[in-house]
Amino acid sequence: MSRVNKRKSALDQISELTTNRLSVYLRCLQDLEAAGVQTVSSHALAERFRLNAAQIRKDLAYFGEFGVRGVGYYVRDLRRHLRQILGLDRQLRVGIIGAGNLGLALADYPGFRQEGFEIVALFDADHARVGQHSRGGVPIHPIADLRRITRRDRVAIAVIAVPVTAAQAVVDLAVSAGIRAILNFTPGALSAPAGVKLKSVDFTVSLESLSFHLAQEGG
Amino acid sequence: MSRVNKRKSALDQISELTTNRLSVYLRCLQDLEAAGVQTVSSHALAERFRLNAAQIRKDLAYFGEFGVRGVGYYVRDLRRHLRQILGLDRQLRVGIIGAGNLGLALADYPGFRQEGFEIVALFDADHARVGQHSRGGVPIHPIADLRRITRRDRVAIAVIAVPVTAAQAVVDLAVSAGIRAILNFTPGALSAPAGVKLKSVDFTVSLESLSFHLAQEGG
Repeated sequence: MSRVNKRKSALDQISELTTNRLSVYLRCLQDLEAAGVQTVSSHALAERFRLNAAQIRKDLAYFGEFGVRGVGYYVRDLRRHLRQILGLDRQLRVGIIGAGNLGLALADYPGFRQEGFEIVALFDADHARVGQHSRGGVPIHPIADLRRITRRDRVAIAVIAVPVTAAQAVVDLAVSAGIRAILNFTPGALSAPAGVKLKSVDFTVSLESLSFHLAQEGG
Repeated sequence: MSRVNKRKSALDQISELTTNRLSVYLRCLQDLEAAGVQTVSSHALAERFRLNAAQIRKDLAYFGEFGVRGVGYYVRDLRRHLRQILGLDRQLRVGIIGAGNLGLALADYPGFRQEGFEIVALFDADHARVGQHSRGGVPIHPIADLRRITRRDRVAIAVIAVPVTAAQAVVDLAVSAGIRAILNFTPGALSAPAGVKLKSVDFTVSLESLSFHLAQEGG
């Protein structure tokens, strides 16, 4: 019981940066498993993938005791645990709102299916797009059918890929359709009610990190 | 002189996580400036944008002493300094390799121009696409012209938006064309020689953070 309680209170403090690191560890463990590696220490993991060994131990300690003294981590077991922690041990269904270039690109993004996400529907307000499919076969529904399709296809996550001016209205629509997890690709601030997790991807942040690199190099 | 030396050695240790946070602070300061706020303490900044005050002070201390005792930070000055640190005080030209749905979406992404990035060219191997333009007017060149156009248009950053199987060859091509900063949107590991900064955007990591949220909620 005390372990469960410890876990519960710790979970409240887990930041997005931590879950992002768990995703990175998961990628590393997949690489190791594919390479036939059976056990790995936090030091070896850190060295091989340029991570921080103390951080790895701290991150994993939130969720239980996975390391074995003198052995390190069992690659396969830790991978399975991480998938469980991240909720990847079941298939999650995703709907993409906006069937423009970005929405269509995301619908067929090869990384998603591999990790257990299934893109089941695209939605668009443009009647010319409705009834068509992405190259990979995801159907484009009218946005007016969002609630019905979300229920029918058990969509858990909505991806927002609409123009900036339409984004907040679309978030509200997704929330009213029962969606509690939203990934937003539109620049600018959006809001969602408590209990709904809204995460934004800002491509500009990535470009700025490159700009920093070039600025330091140049002088 | 000692301040310059301190800055130099500190710069070597600056992780990508730090530059990502600088980008976030920059966004916050832009919001504050737009709202007419003139000074802000690290505490107020942290509270308003759900950041960590100690982390803010530590991150900024790497680059100099920007805070004024009893006042905090001057919003406009700090914003200008951060833009300088991130190398955003000059316009950076970007070329996108791959003019499929993702490349076309990125070419017209509204956030880039706003931050001083100019998308000047798209490149594609498909002759049917060459000679066309993105909706926003970015021309599509043949990939064979990458080196020539990179020099002519002074492209500093290459964005990779090609299928997985072509990605490493395209990175090599960009490097041989003189590019030293690459933003990759293809899933999977790519490598670049020392001196070239290669940053990858993995959409799956963002979805996994939402999956974690749903898993905690459900159980």
